[in-house]
Amino acid sequence: MTSQKVFNFSAGPAMMPSEVMHGVQNEFLNWRGLGVSVAEISHRSQYFLDIAAQSKNQLRELLNIPENYHILFLPGGARTQFASVPMNLMGDYQQAAYVQTGYWGYVAQTEASRYLSINTIVNAEHNHYTHIPDQKTWADFSDCAYLHYVDNETIHGVEFDFIPSAQNVPLVCDMSSNLLSRPFDVSKYGLIYASSQKNVAISGITIVIIRDDLLQRKPHAALPSIMNYALQVKHDSMWNTPPTFEWYFADQVFQWIKKQGGLSVMAKHNADKAKKIYDYLDSQSFYQNKINKQHRSRMNVIFHLPTPELDAAFVKQAQENHLFGLKGHKILGGIRASIYNAMPMEGVDQLIAFMKQFALLNIP
Amino acid sequence: MTSQKVFNFSAGPAMMPSEVMHGVQNEFLNWRGLGVSVAEISHRSQYFLDIAAQSKNQLRELLNIPENYHILFLPGGARTQFASVPMNLMGDYQQAAYVQTGYWGYVAQTEASRYLSINTIVNAEHNHYTHIPDQKTWADFSDCAYLHYVDNETIHGVEFDFIPSAQNVPLVCDMSSNLLSRPFDVSKYGLIYASSQKNVAISGITIVIIRDDLLQRKPHAALPSIMNYALQVKHDSMWNTPPTFEWYFADQVFQWIKKQGGLSVMAKHNADKAKKIYDYLDSQSFYQNKINKQHRSRMNVIFHLPTPELDAAFVKQAQENHLFGLKGHKILGGIRASIYNAMPMEGVDQLIAFMKQFALLNIP
Repeated sequence: MTSQKVFNFSAGPAMMPSEVMHGVQNEFLNWRGLGVSVAEISHRSQYFLDIAAQSKNQLRELLNIPENYHILFLPGGARTQFASVPMNLMGDYQQAAYVQTGYWGYVAQTEASRYLSINTIVNAEHNHYTHIPDQKTWADFSDCAYLHYVDNETIHGVEFDFIPSAQNVPLVCDMSSNLLSRPFDVSKYGLIYASSQKNVAISGITIVIIRDDLLQRKPHAALPSIMNYALQVKHDSMWNTPPTFEWYFADQVFQWIKKQGGLSVMAKHNADKAKKIYDYLDSQSFYQNKINKQHRSRMNVIFHLPTPELDAAFVKQAQENHLFGLKGHKILGGIRASIYNAMPMEGVDQLIAFMKQFALLNIP
Repeated sequence: MTSQKVFNFSAGPAMMPSEVMHGVQNEFLNWRGLGVSVAEISHRSQYFLDIAAQSKNQLRELLNIPENYHILFLPGGARTQFASVPMNLMGDYQQAAYVQTGYWGYVAQTEASRYLSINTIVNAEHNHYTHIPDQKTWADFSDCAYLHYVDNETIHGVEFDFIPSAQNVPLVCDMSSNLLSRPFDVSKYGLIYASSQKNVAISGITIVIIRDDLLQRKPHAALPSIMNYALQVKHDSMWNTPPTFEWYFADQVFQWIKKQGGLSVMAKHNADKAKKIYDYLDSQSFYQNKINKQHRSRMNVIFHLPTPELDAAFVKQAQENHLFGLKGHKILGGIRASIYNAMPMEGVDQLIAFMKQFALLNIP
């Protein structure tokens, strides 16, 4: 057993709020005095239906979700949504618009291309995904079924600093890694989805927020029922047995966020943490981050050391110093410090202190 | 907080083994001394890859799964498999064979009928799903892509007492409610699937066991990648971020079963529990079970009281007596006592004692 506090910078499954973890552990065997675990009760029981209703109400309140939007809790993660979105929203359209500002935008587009033509209206790959191109430079998408983008790219460490203007085209956004990290205007969107394992809960459940009118679109004939938004709306996300423990966990996280003061407090907290690390990165030259300052992710801070060997040594020694999960994604290598809602400022301070010490000992 | 032990007869999400629940709670905040939860570590970390590998090895050992079968851990439950099976296995076939011996066989067939023609080779609905028709009475299925059946019907309380002979047609089985409850010959099957929330783990993960040659079949062109068996085999069930906590939980359950003595011990235990309840049911006339004796489920014991009002009073008073989750499925009403692996004989004894007492006080 470790006695010192560990700070977990994993990109996802990620660190959950300490208070939530303790609360979940405390009532794990005996939920609400029933003598059984919340993980052992029927999703059709009134007990669980109460959790489901409460979680939706809380999310609606936290995000200020208008009444003409439905909230779903579905299995399968964002990868499932990469297919669900085109299959549900294609209607009679010939093509969909995709924005590529990192790896996940590319993967989402690749899956969608199996169902309809793709209009890649902007692609930042030529610039190694280090910025978000100004919307003035994007191609026309007025005849598209929808406009899809990824608000925060976890691998490339790039985050949108604006909501694209989509006029009459439904705006679809993968917010897997930054939903609940700040307030934003839901009414600008047609559909928002987010897998759980960053800011929402442990892995295994996916939030979908969909505007009512989009349920009228004719889906792909082969759409598996489990992925059918209209059907799941009709069945209150219980057409199947949902991942009940994750759903309950998400509800606990929503309560925690509310207790912290809501999303504006989260936003300030996250901005402060990110600023501290980026300010340090900008103050020295041993660690490199090449992302356009305006588009640096507040959730995933990526950087490289002078050599891959030093990257590896950094990750190893960081873990020995109780800083966990700093290894970058295999696609980019380097270091990635994920600082979602649950990461306290203390963790960021310890990371920076370790970075300073490591640099001192390893500068050539 | 309740002080008396509660026995949970929920059909699923269901009671998990008490030792597993305690073990999971104990290490929930600090797994293997890492200072972080197993629910907070990356699925790509060596820590989690070890769990994934160990869980597969253990399952292979428990079920004696031949080397030419792949084991997958997927999201989405059995409902997802209702679409995955036809979409992956249709190849150039025109139709698939379905056996209807209860509600879930019907639902599986309905979803499959969206992808290919269905040959319902036997249908026990005319007899209110109270028995498994002899295979001699089944229609021919030799030209079908596969033969699908549900080994245990949780709502109708009917369980197969034999493995159908399928000759050269791949046998596909939904074992969601009885996988791990007894040993059986995996080599008779082409594909076996099971959602987790009965004998495997808490809800949210699905086991698929598939024979290697079936991965060669050409899938439906619109098959979502997340549901593509061959792709998931290639990526070791990690094409997506898996529901890591459920996967870990399943691994804990596998260890527990092994510690109990394996599946033959489970089978004896389950047969003994079921016999005790059915023997009591057969000894009186207040509670009614109309299932053909040979096909009574060892997992889900269903019965009715003389009136729906008495059913409701029974469920309510049972819970007051620490017997939880006995309400029957809304389709059939009545009572359902689910007695999966985790239910100890003590729970069955207390249920029977309560039934005797309730009957005594309520016999007209």
